[in-house]
Amino acid sequence: MAMSSKGEFGFIDFIKEHFKAPEGVMGIGDDCAVLPTDWGELLVSTDLLMEGVHFLREESSPEDIGWKAAAVNLSDIAAMGGSPVATFLSIALPKDAQGEWAERFIKGYAEISDLFDVPLLGGDTTSSLRDIAINVCVLGRCPSGKALTRSGARPGDVIYVTGPLGDSAAGLQAILQNLERTEDVATLIHRHKRPVPRLRAGTDLIDTGVVGAMMDISDGIASDLRHILKASGVGAVVELDRLPLSEELQMVCQEQNWDAYELATGGGEDFELLFTAPAGLEKRTDIIIVYPIGKIVEGSEIQWYHDGVRTDFDTTGYKHF
Amino acid sequence: MAMSSKGEFGFIDFIKEHFKAPEGVMGIGDDCAVLPTDWGELLVSTDLLMEGVHFLREESSPEDIGWKAAAVNLSDIAAMGGSPVATFLSIALPKDAQGEWAERFIKGYAEISDLFDVPLLGGDTTSSLRDIAINVCVLGRCPSGKALTRSGARPGDVIYVTGPLGDSAAGLQAILQNLERTEDVATLIHRHKRPVPRLRAGTDLIDTGVVGAMMDISDGIASDLRHILKASGVGAVVELDRLPLSEELQMVCQEQNWDAYELATGGGEDFELLFTAPAGLEKRTDIIIVYPIGKIVEGSEIQWYHDGVRTDFDTTGYKHF
Repeated sequence: MAMSSKGEFGFIDFIKEHFKAPEGVMGIGDDCAVLPTDWGELLVSTDLLMEGVHFLREESSPEDIGWKAAAVNLSDIAAMGGSPVATFLSIALPKDAQGEWAERFIKGYAEISDLFDVPLLGGDTTSSLRDIAINVCVLGRCPSGKALTRSGARPGDVIYVTGPLGDSAAGLQAILQNLERTEDVATLIHRHKRPVPRLRAGTDLIDTGVVGAMMDISDGIASDLRHILKASGVGAVVELDRLPLSEELQMVCQEQNWDAYELATGGGEDFELLFTAPAGLEKRTDIIIVYPIGKIVEGSEIQWYHDGVRTDFDTTGYKHF
Repeated sequence: MAMSSKGEFGFIDFIKEHFKAPEGVMGIGDDCAVLPTDWGELLVSTDLLMEGVHFLREESSPEDIGWKAAAVNLSDIAAMGGSPVATFLSIALPKDAQGEWAERFIKGYAEISDLFDVPLLGGDTTSSLRDIAINVCVLGRCPSGKALTRSGARPGDVIYVTGPLGDSAAGLQAILQNLERTEDVATLIHRHKRPVPRLRAGTDLIDTGVVGAMMDISDGIASDLRHILKASGVGAVVELDRLPLSEELQMVCQEQNWDAYELATGGGEDFELLFTAPAGLEKRTDIIIVYPIGKIVEGSEIQWYHDGVRTDFDTTGYKHF
């Protein structure tokens, strides 16, 4: 779940020391917690979004924020290969966000919930002195023993992603730099504001039975791939020129003189899936299209290559604002 | 779940219009959502606590806030007669609460989690610009078809509570008025800061098979009982002189000239259970001690009696601060 990858101020280890997951239960340390039940595995994830940290009220419509709050949680279910069961929404609203803002937020939240047919089954509403706080908790399920975790990568596996990288980060840059809204720029901004969790890809991939490790890309592959490497005890080779880049990203990067590779590796919130599997998955026609970007090797680090030549390219991952 | 009782600014109805629970699933409107599974019913509840609204940093130790954040959620599981399975903690911390404050918070959270043997299996940690935000999501379970909801009260049922009322509200008053910490005052403050969810009572009561409606007392019975009346389509007679009052509450009310009945009915956060059942449950020795305080009648309102005489006593329930 989020607790593994968003542990600012080195607080997670302290928490882990104080809590031990029961036998057979996977607690802190992946996209979701995994609890075995008689009808399969129950997946649970939760994310807390704070105004001024994760979103700015003046930069996003309430509908977009509602959409994204649900989307990022549904993406954690996709990351395990699961299917969402229900969401639970807690929201704290200062006086000036009650009424219209709150209702428009719910409309965006309902829009993506309807798209994936996921009911909102409860939550909490309360007031806030100043900042909006939004917590979503999502439940999902997958067949017993099948949840795709971060620890299953093995040397020789190919590293794949399910779609273009960097669009969301470029969209955020376009907002922050107030770029003219050309069609390309608008597409990138839309990708940033309305990410679509790759639930279909997740269940397709769990069904293949050959996926090693999987997670969703929330902080950029430079950061997220390291979670897989650490959890699996392996290293990786990534070929920058094989990263899937959208035409829009390439166009805008050219116009703005932005580094597409930096956006594609260090930029977050693409919410594509990052996974490992034996070679050849990209040739299968019975599953969603996947893109090989490198391979798992012995070691513990990422080696970046470009046109077959190793580069000292590096980036430390995405900061939310 | 919390969404039923804490719907400030009439926002819940708007949310309910946009989401429909699937067949067989109980969504918004009780202490927990109830999802049927093959091994029983899954209970889910979530609560969002905001600094300055639900707690003041200068008035409570981080350990106490950690304890209470877990306690109020576990109480929602108790309210359905369930057993807790796991909690998920999301916490947003401004710079001045990172480090020591956060670690002491976790210690309090771990203390009550250990007491009830409930693992923390995940969550989210993030930074906050200004206020601390804490969201806890709790999962519980109970046997299929047995969850005790708010809608099962019938005319003729006796209304019971599981313990003394008003202590927590008096403790809060004592803090706000900075009363001298006599032994009695300290006990009331402890009841406010370290509420104990009535999980044992909840499972005892589900096992009796005779409980009609049940919920936990978070806002005071004057407010909470109305939720049962509304959900069940009934009215109630409550006898003020039968409300269980602790010796400490009676002593401090006498000293401070406070109205014990007002605290016991309008004061919240006692986290005792409020439920209905046929007469005679107070005589059973195989379950926890319960206190009859009135009865369910036809109608829709609460009629308050004192020494057999109807009074126009009324109160609108507890405000957090």
